[in-house]
Amino acid sequence: MPYVNIKITREGATPEQKAALIAGATDLLAKVLNKNPATTFVVIDEVALEDWGVGGLPVEAYRKQALGRLGRDG
Amino acid sequence: MPYVNIKITREGATPEQKAALIAGATDLLAKVLNKNPATTFVVIDEVALEDWGVGGLPVEAYRKQALGRLGRDG
Amino acid sequence: MPYVNIKITREGATPEQKAALIAGATDLLAKVLNKNPATTFVVIDEVALEDWGVGGLPVEAYRKQALGRLGRDG
Amino acid sequence: MPYVNIKITREGATPEQKAALIAGATDLLAKVLNKNPATTFVVIDEVALEDWGVGGLPVEAYRKQALGRLGRDG
Amino acid sequence: MPYVNIKITREGATPEQKAALIAGATDLLAKVLNKNPATTFVVIDEVALEDWGVGGLPVEAYRKQALGRLGRDG
Amino acid sequence: MPYVNIKITREGATPEQKAALIAGATDLLAKVLNKNPATTFVVIDEVALEDWGVGGLPVEAYRKQALGRLGRDG
Repeated sequence: MPYVNIKITREGATPEQKAALIAGATDLLAKVLNKNPATTFVVIDEVALEDWGVGGLPVEAYRKQALGRLGRDG
Repeated sequence: MPYVNIKITREGATPEQKAALIAGATDLLAKVLNKNPATTFVVIDEVALEDWGVGGLPVEAYRKQALGRLGRDG
Repeated sequence: MPYVNIKITREGATPEQKAALIAGATDLLAKVLNKNPATTFVVIDEVALEDWGVGGLPVEAYRKQALGRLGRDG
Repeated sequence: MPYVNIKITREGATPEQKAALIAGATDLLAKVLNKNPATTFVVIDEVALEDWGVGGLPVEAYRKQALGRLGRDG
Repeated sequence: MPYVNIKITREGATPEQKAALIAGATDLLAKVLNKNPATTFVVIDEVALEDWGVGGLPVEAYRKQALGRLGRDG
Repeated sequence: MPYVNIKITREGATPEQKAALIAGATDLLAKVLNKNPATTFVVIDEVALEDWGVGGLPVEAYRKQALGRLGRDG
């Protein structure tokens, strides 16, 4: 009876893509560990860009910085 | 100082029902483990139906499938 | 299909006490929101005292400080 | 930069099986949402049987009850 | 590659304050454990007041009760 | 009343380092959002290397691969 939590940034994932994540995660547990899909839960959390940080910066600032660095190096 | 997280599908739980979950979970920890309510946190997450999967399907598709099966079997 | 996560400090909770938490949390969701126990998951995490902080201190240091304060005030 | 948390009961998953879960979850996010594997985290939690409840019972009691029901019905 | 999750009540934290939380948590892991900021994730969850409980009450009711107690005692 | 969860790989963090994480995270919430340390919880989870994945690999395999790439490139 696995529980899978998938956190992604909120950037327009469609219901179809979410359904694909749910199906894929459930299949993965069934294939690798023989877990019963009927008792596998998948919960997706979409996180606003301002609420997700990496490299010490909110995601958008982080991406701009990374692009700037590419620009300078190019 | 327990921390309790309750995840439910978003289907119209009222503030009164949420207050009952908070009171009930806090009482449970006090009764079973003698935990101090003053330092017991309860956090409720409501999850959109498209973000919760079971049986490899988003909840709504899962419920339709289950109903269809009941219909065929009945 | 609720998912409940209960985090407590690791201080000797018995299997019977854990079973009481599982039964109690499941009943609570059934009573308050009419959730089906068959699809209610409860996961208990026991956290070592050195891994839990409150008031800016690990739990044991926090408790000593609180006792000291009581002593001074008493 | 997704974060995936997989909770399973502790029943002897091998390092190879865990590596397969990590690879599979990372691939899933790459295929469905074009997420970069380099910034995809997967964290696996193994939960002791006495700490996981379903149907209001710890997993082992739940399984015994389910088997008993099958026996009576068979 | 740490993962930090910060849950706060939703009471108007600004993007600048969230950026300060992200920077501060990332610095903390770098200073204390020499963790690489590039692989440190911080995720902030804002929780509605009715979804957060303490002392067996939703936060707003808890605050009113605490104020009332101060009033009586004062 | 914030709740902070810090997940790190299990690689020998000492009780003193954990206490520094607890103090630092609590201070951060007090400074940035004026949160009361008395109702700030910090929970640290140490995750075994085989249970943490990045880049589609368990941490140790990921680090070996990264070193190998540095060697080839150097």
